[in-house]
Amino acid sequence: MRYGELPLEAKCTRCKGTATIRMPSHHANFCPPCFLRYFQTAVQRAMKTLGIQEPGPLMVAVSGGKDSLALWAILNELGYETRGLHLNLGIDGFSHSSEEAVRAFARERQLPLSIHSLKETFGYTLPEIKGRTRRKICGVCGFLKRQFMNRLTVREGFRYLALGHNLDDEAGRLLGNIVRHRTQYFAKQYPLLPSRHEKVPTRLKPLYRLEAHEIVTFCRLASIKPCEDPCPLSGGATSHVFKEALDFLEAKMPGTKRDFLFSYVDRRPPPPAHPDFGTCRRCGEAAYETICSVCSLLERLEKSKKNSQES
Amino acid sequence: MRYGELPLEAKCTRCKGTATIRMPSHHANFCPPCFLRYFQTAVQRAMKTLGIQEPGPLMVAVSGGKDSLALWAILNELGYETRGLHLNLGIDGFSHSSEEAVRAFARERQLPLSIHSLKETFGYTLPEIKGRTRRKICGVCGFLKRQFMNRLTVREGFRYLALGHNLDDEAGRLLGNIVRHRTQYFAKQYPLLPSRHEKVPTRLKPLYRLEAHEIVTFCRLASIKPCEDPCPLSGGATSHVFKEALDFLEAKMPGTKRDFLFSYVDRRPPPPAHPDFGTCRRCGEAAYETICSVCSLLERLEKSKKNSQES
Repeated sequence: MRYGELPLEAKCTRCKGTATIRMPSHHANFCPPCFLRYFQTAVQRAMKTLGIQEPGPLMVAVSGGKDSLALWAILNELGYETRGLHLNLGIDGFSHSSEEAVRAFARERQLPLSIHSLKETFGYTLPEIKGRTRRKICGVCGFLKRQFMNRLTVREGFRYLALGHNLDDEAGRLLGNIVRHRTQYFAKQYPLLPSRHEKVPTRLKPLYRLEAHEIVTFCRLASIKPCEDPCPLSGGATSHVFKEALDFLEAKMPGTKRDFLFSYVDRRPPPPAHPDFGTCRRCGEAAYETICSVCSLLERLEKSKKNSQES
Repeated sequence: MRYGELPLEAKCTRCKGTATIRMPSHHANFCPPCFLRYFQTAVQRAMKTLGIQEPGPLMVAVSGGKDSLALWAILNELGYETRGLHLNLGIDGFSHSSEEAVRAFARERQLPLSIHSLKETFGYTLPEIKGRTRRKICGVCGFLKRQFMNRLTVREGFRYLALGHNLDDEAGRLLGNIVRHRTQYFAKQYPLLPSRHEKVPTRLKPLYRLEAHEIVTFCRLASIKPCEDPCPLSGGATSHVFKEALDFLEAKMPGTKRDFLFSYVDRRPPPPAHPDFGTCRRCGEAAYETICSVCSLLERLEKSKKNSQES
């Protein structure tokens, strides 16, 4: 929020009241009520684009950060029946604050919440896994959370899993895939991924039309208190580099980021629902290989544990 | 050139002699002779990729800047018969320095050179045009130079016109077209554009494999003294913004810029040679409309001149 850049006595572009919120990518300034209306409309429009016509039950993946709590709040306001799903990663301090932010949010709004821990689910905390593998921990954390969220969503009888990825996340990922010619990921670069396996719900990203700074503003106006600590294990992730390059272009040419992502999404149909997964012969979850990434990781972790106990 | 970052007593990656040149995008350091060999090879490889097998006569568009003089020098070293073609834009100071740099280069190397001026060719200097049109002057200068260079190349009996665009220029243009979804330009985003009209030569960009900083190094090693003044009319051009965004990615992930451009160029054939131009019914040059952009501009300039004389 760059209040300092708002002209004195700036008027709201919608209602001509006093504006306090700058929206450079819309060449507009908003007052708080008009901003909230804009935010709601953006999510409704996203749901319509994604083909979700009726408010039905949605599982919401909640990390405790600004995006997932804003998502949970707005879906609830729009009348969706929701349940929050949180996975405690077992990272000292960070995981405790994250879980507390989620619990406080659910308590205040009296929303149903399921909390699980990585340790109880897979037998290890994330730092324990990091100590036993040479793989990049952000990638490992990604597929562990993905399988866990999919599994629990289906087990609790939900067809949809809503995720907090915002416009900056999606545009950054698109730019990265384009610059690195990762054409194999283009088909899945869409804010809705239909279910392609009985153990995988349809995944959707209702915040894909909203920028990170707009979500920060929404949290402030809606009195949401997210966990603001950065993950202490995420150093070295390259995903933010493409977001920063887009922020650079956005600063020079406001609106670039939105136009870039939307004209890509709007020109394309959602990816097809035909199955490209098999089934893991060990755990029965969706898998690209005969054994899923989670079982294959757990197997290597077990070996490493035995080796360290023997030596 | 970031000499400061070269480790003391760094070895040349090729010959193990003393390295003085850092090549971060190649994860290499070079000594001057190995750098010059690398530079030559890059141009030879470009010519091969562009399907130019035999050194034949080439017209070279020379502005007097580093890229066009480096291009002229290297094509000459590689045994091509070349002629330089310079257009003086009539910009106070800048155009004089540019023409002087071109003349000095041709004189020292005893290379044939044709010099013309915008005033003598079209009746106006660039500042005069800028004063009489609301269009962005960089775009106007672009199509005036393009038609002039094409016309003179064909008139002097050359089939090929070589242009100094480098890797940074081409990658920046590609990124801009992708981010802005200017899909209509994708087909022409290639370092070779076959002739599509009898008044248009085949245009090629033999430096597309070389980064701007590599060309600066080449000029220094080859004792080329380009005009280093920036064009005083170019303020506000947005083309450099995409180059800067790529420089940002390159600094974080060296090699990104090359990979981005090359995997795009290498996956595609050159654009087809079928004609998409008509012929201007006023001047007979290539034109997308019934009147070419140059005649249409000149017509408006004449009107504006008459109006200002009458008032």
